Amino acid sequence: MNKKSSNIMALAPTTSNKRETVCIFGTGDFGRALAHKMIQSGYPVVFGSRSTQTSSLIPKDAEVLSHAEAARKATIIIIAIQRQHYNFLTSLGEILHGKVLVDISNNLKINQYPESNAEYLAQLVPGAKVVKAFNTVSAWALQSGTLDASRQVFVCGDDMEAKQMVMDIVRALGLTPLDQGSLLAAQEIENYPLQLFPMWKFPILLSLGLVTFFFLYSLIRDVIYPYVNENKDFSFFIAISIPNRICPILALILLALVYVPGVLAAIIQLYRGTKYSRFPDWLDKWMLCRKQLGLVALAFASLHVLFTLVIPIRSFVRWRTSSQIVSQALNNKTEPLDNTNAWLSDSYLALGILGFFLFVLLGITSLPSVSNNVNWREFRFVQSKLGYLTLILCTAHTLVYGGKWFLSPSSYRWYLPSAYMLSLIVPCAVLVVKFVLIFPCLDKPLTRIRQGWERNSKYSE
Amino acid sequence: MNKKSSNIMALAPTTSNKRETVCIFGTGDFGRALAHKMIQSGYPVVFGSRSTQTSSLIPKDAEVLSHAEAARKATIIIIAIQRQHYNFLTSLGEILHGKVLVDISNNLKINQYPESNAEYLAQLVPGAKVVKAFNTVSAWALQSGTLDASRQVFVCGDDMEAKQMVMDIVRALGLTPLDQGSLLAAQEIENYPLQLFPMWKFPILLSLGLVTFFFLYSLIRDVIYPYVNENKDFSFFIAISIPNRICPILALILLALVYVPGVLAAIIQLYRGTKYSRFPDWLDKWMLCRKQLGLVALAFASLHVLFTLVIPIRSFVRWRTSSQIVSQALNNKTEPLDNTNAWLSDSYLALGILGFFLFVLLGITSLPSVSNNVNWREFRFVQSKLGYLTLILCTAHTLVYGGKWFLSPSSYRWYLPSAYMLSLIVPCAVLVVKFVLIFPCLDKPLTRIRQGWERNSKYSE
Amino acid sequence: MNKKSSNIMALAPTTSNKRETVCIFGTGDFGRALAHKMIQSGYPVVFGSRSTQTSSLIPKDAEVLSHAEAARKATIIIIAIQRQHYNFLTSLGEILHGKVLVDISNNLKINQYPESNAEYLAQLVPGAKVVKAFNTVSAWALQSGTLDASRQVFVCGDDMEAKQMVMDIVRALGLTPLDQGSLLAAQEIENYPLQLFPMWKFPILLSLGLVTFFFLYSLIRDVIYPYVNENKDFSFFIAISIPNRICPILALILLALVYVPGVLAAIIQLYRGTKYSRFPDWLDKWMLCRKQLGLVALAFASLHVLFTLVIPIRSFVRWRTSSQIVSQALNNKTEPLDNTNAWLSDSYLALGILGFFLFVLLGITSLPSVSNNVNWREFRFVQSKLGYLTLILCTAHTLVYGGKWFLSPSSYRWYLPSAYMLSLIVPCAVLVVKFVLIFPCLDKPLTRIRQGWERNSKYSE
Repeated sequence: MNKKSSNIMALAPTTSNKRETVCIFGTGDFGRALAHKMIQSGYPVVFGSRSTQTSSLIPKDAEVLSHAEAARKATIIIIAIQRQHYNFLTSLGEILHGKVLVDISNNLKINQYPESNAEYLAQLVPGAKVVKAFNTVSAWALQSGTLDASRQVFVCGDDMEAKQMVMDIVRALGLTPLDQGSLLAAQEIENYPLQLFPMWKFPILLSLGLVTFFFLYSLIRDVIYPYVNENKDFSFFIAISIPNRICPILALILLALVYVPGVLAAIIQLYRGTKYSRFPDWLDKWMLCRKQLGLVALAFASLHVLFTLVIPIRSFVRWRTSSQIVSQALNNKTEPLDNTNAWLSDSYLALGILGFFLFVLLGITSLPSVSNNVNWREFRFVQSKLGYLTLILCTAHTLVYGGKWFLSPSSYRWYLPSAYMLSLIVPCAVLVVKFVLIFPCLDKPLTRIRQGWERNSKYSE
Repeated sequence: MNKKSSNIMALAPTTSNKRETVCIFGTGDFGRALAHKMIQSGYPVVFGSRSTQTSSLIPKDAEVLSHAEAARKATIIIIAIQRQHYNFLTSLGEILHGKVLVDISNNLKINQYPESNAEYLAQLVPGAKVVKAFNTVSAWALQSGTLDASRQVFVCGDDMEAKQMVMDIVRALGLTPLDQGSLLAAQEIENYPLQLFPMWKFPILLSLGLVTFFFLYSLIRDVIYPYVNENKDFSFFIAISIPNRICPILALILLALVYVPGVLAAIIQLYRGTKYSRFPDWLDKWMLCRKQLGLVALAFASLHVLFTLVIPIRSFVRWRTSSQIVSQALNNKTEPLDNTNAWLSDSYLALGILGFFLFVLLGITSLPSVSNNVNWREFRFVQSKLGYLTLILCTAHTLVYGGKWFLSPSSYRWYLPSAYMLSLIVPCAVLVVKFVLIFPCLDKPLTRIRQGWERNSKYSE
Repeated sequence: MNKKSSNIMALAPTTSNKRETVCIFGTGDFGRALAHKMIQSGYPVVFGSRSTQTSSLIPKDAEVLSHAEAARKATIIIIAIQRQHYNFLTSLGEILHGKVLVDISNNLKINQYPESNAEYLAQLVPGAKVVKAFNTVSAWALQSGTLDASRQVFVCGDDMEAKQMVMDIVRALGLTPLDQGSLLAAQEIENYPLQLFPMWKFPILLSLGLVTFFFLYSLIRDVIYPYVNENKDFSFFIAISIPNRICPILALILLALVYVPGVLAAIIQLYRGTKYSRFPDWLDKWMLCRKQLGLVALAFASLHVLFTLVIPIRSFVRWRTSSQIVSQALNNKTEPLDNTNAWLSDSYLALGILGFFLFVLLGITSLPSVSNNVNWREFRFVQSKLGYLTLILCTAHTLVYGGKWFLSPSSYRWYLPSAYMLSLIVPCAVLVVKFVLIFPCLDKPLTRIRQGWERNSKYSE
């Protein structure tokens, strides 16, 4: 059910119903946490342990017996011991025959063993029905009842009925079971809780590198240069002016990098004349983190919008505006409206707004619940058509913004061009190549290649 | 599992486990793409084909046999051929008896045939267990391993066990199977990938029409009129000023149109005295796209907010402000604070901010993952109560904004009233009718009608 | 399937397929609404009723028979009568033997009866297979076909096959069945539609109380004080200035309150030396509504951002700026740039922007579809690390904003300190305690306690 109702249940245990006894092998932290939660949800719990002495740590309502005795009392046995100690279970083979063994173990490293712990357990006790479950839940969260994070429990196993029994327990504890199929899925389920944003590493490291580079670049041009040449102290630019220069540059470059692998893939396919050969590994990996790259770009674009919108309330800008107006008034002159300037200013703002708007739309479409409600045709329409439109608008926004200074020598300080000029290289290159690929002489063979046609069999391995 | 871990799996095939042989009938593009992916995931693949010559296109690890021979080697047979060629399968009836046939076909048009391809297949081979699957996945995406979009594979079939086997394969390929029930669901599953935002067509066409109308209207009033009458060139208004006039108008009108069908339905039910007669077709369709109408309105409202917030950094606005201040300074006069003006300005901004805030809340609640966590009572509270509050706030925002110019003759140019006056017609009408419907003399009978009571049986067909 | 395609189906009934007859006991509103929808989806429907007279209310295509006769015609019997009238079903025991009874009833209050209606039904008719379903769907929505809200139908039952049959019907009606396990889940399913944002009550009431307090406080300081002391009318501050003072204060206090229970829990655990004793009830409840507290805080922060960004377009601010500049021009003086001021202004804006940005990130991560795609390690990283960083940034933003006025006597009016000083108490206290808890001498024992270690058994019950 949903989180709210489950939360309520967590506080008001439903002990009214009779539930089947569950046996837990092992009196470690997670075994005890599970036992607490199960007793709360109305399950009689029996511990199987080497020493049958009850310790104060073990929930009062739970019995502690020897492994064999405990196993005899229940159909479902939760194996809350570490993989290294699984061996002794072979000796219980007869008692465990036909029982449902729930493997809840986790490893310390991804792919630590050749086979998953659950599959290893199934090999040790061939007569038992092994189900993998509960490994993605934290003992501390189970214990304290404060499961604010995902309530999903991945369950897999070869025996349908055993899986159903375990999934019923999962639901009774206020969690959401997710059937992951046969025991082959156990490896993946065991790797899952060890990950820490694996797909985000590259985009975040890349943007950290770019941020450092452009920060130093802007620092030299905008703070050190005026200090050396004009002895002006603009060190406070570090707070807003320089970030607001870095953010749009990163947003544009990262957005362009989202579309680079697609363009490269098209070129490779055209060159090889087939789609049936693997791309180089780095291109594959790049393709897989395009979504994350785009979202990091969106984060920088959002920061750029916020930094831009506070411009008029910055103390420095207010001072600059008022001193300009005062000096105008003192010089007794009123400037006429510069129409070209009004056009340029309004158009780069409008382009930026539309670009950002489409960018946010792309971001919303990448939310899992939204993209799951969209079919392939719709997804391609949004991510490809709208994506390129966003890139075009954002590139145009940058071009119009700096258009007039582009070739002015005053924009070079110590031979360094303005940072935004550097930011235009990748997006302009992507757009030009994409534009060339749209020509029928290239688009037609590419379409045929992607429909399975091969120019020759030379590269098709 | 989630996208990240599946991505990793896509790169590191788990060939360590023994999996059952899968047979694929047909060596077309999608058949080959599936074969590639399955071999990668550890499945032995056998092709069934008319010509048993291996071509370079076919994955090296796959055998190519005659249809009959290939079918004998596997329990699961994927039918990767087009519906027109299904006929020959009748001759294999005996061999296919008891096998699991996976129909992966798609049509070119929605509801192209009277029965779905999968049901047609089940009729042709009555002894086989037909499962519909994989039709929503793109061959290109399967092939390249870059499944950024939905990984959901809709599966349906009458035989539970056969469905489970297919769902296991789906999971092994790193995709998420979604059980859609019996084979009756096949028609819908086959129509799914052919859709392109069907519910969005009406709202988007409507708003395009309205945008065009109000753009021309504002162009005449704000650019052509001053050019003709005062010879002033305000053409740059096209970039921001006119869009910022169109966006709030569209947001308000579309938001009001979300609530029109509900009000109309209430009137119809009151008039007919029953809820058991269908509404006119256009009203049904209008009701079904209310969410999309509201989201398009929200998009326009967001653009309006962005366009409004950049006002102070527009070159034209800066020029206008500074020339006003300079002329004040030159004329040596300081204006006192106009308290009424301060009140009006602050209140329409505050109303707009609150209205937009609630509007965004409504938008967030319409995200699938959020609305799935909300029960009917909560959903009605948000969409009905908060929705009307949003409409009231936004209408009030517009009324206060233009309050003082409403009846001033200077706001009419060439007899055209200001555009925002036109925008107030629909929302004010909706709010007035809704207000009338709240009166007990109308609300009571309406509530009873909606609880199933009928005034008379005249209209109840 | 997704909403769009289901909507289409709702308009184009697929009557082409033969479906099994469904019997409905009871001709009330919900029974009739279900019948309408089922007939539309191609199911033959038979009503079981005390009086077998067909009324105009009953769909024409449905037969009305006696209970016994109707039950004989179908395998699935939907019990669309109220729990009070279930008794008569005992007399039909023999006919209902082996049939699938679908309990669709709802109660008027949460936990109205000791056992759920479905379990009560199962006790009354022991031979039947009881399935709970459809109670979360609204009759009116079913009838009108406008199911914009959740299409999820929670289904539970002890018989797997019976559950499958009911889930197939649910899917055929264009709804999404969600298997909730055995009949034990019925109680929770029956309570679900009666809730109205139970977890939001405390955060919303708390923030209403705080808003009232700070509104009156600011009214006295910013409107009444200048009116009494200087006879100035700043009543229009009620529209924007005062809300923009209240919103950041509430955002900061509520955000700090999210982290208070975690800090309290750590102190309690350190004091007790165990994690195996329950927290006081109020702390448990506080922990469970942390997410909602944080989201309310985010709402206030968003309003603060909007209120701040419209500052330069407020009529009052424009007047103040222009009169300052005019008076400068008339006095013939130009002020130099105050570097400290520029630093302070830019840094509190930058801190606020970064704080708000992280806050929005936290908000996005709490969307159900996003948090479901994140494992425990990732969730803790985001909510704990990023959460504290947000709190630090927002507290620093407030400190820098008001830094210079902190000790100035002019900021006290009628001995009342500025409101933002009050807002700093809770966040500063939380940050100080958290900082202390990071010290190894406290962090190490805490970590061991959370891994299951106990200092002594005194408190472990």
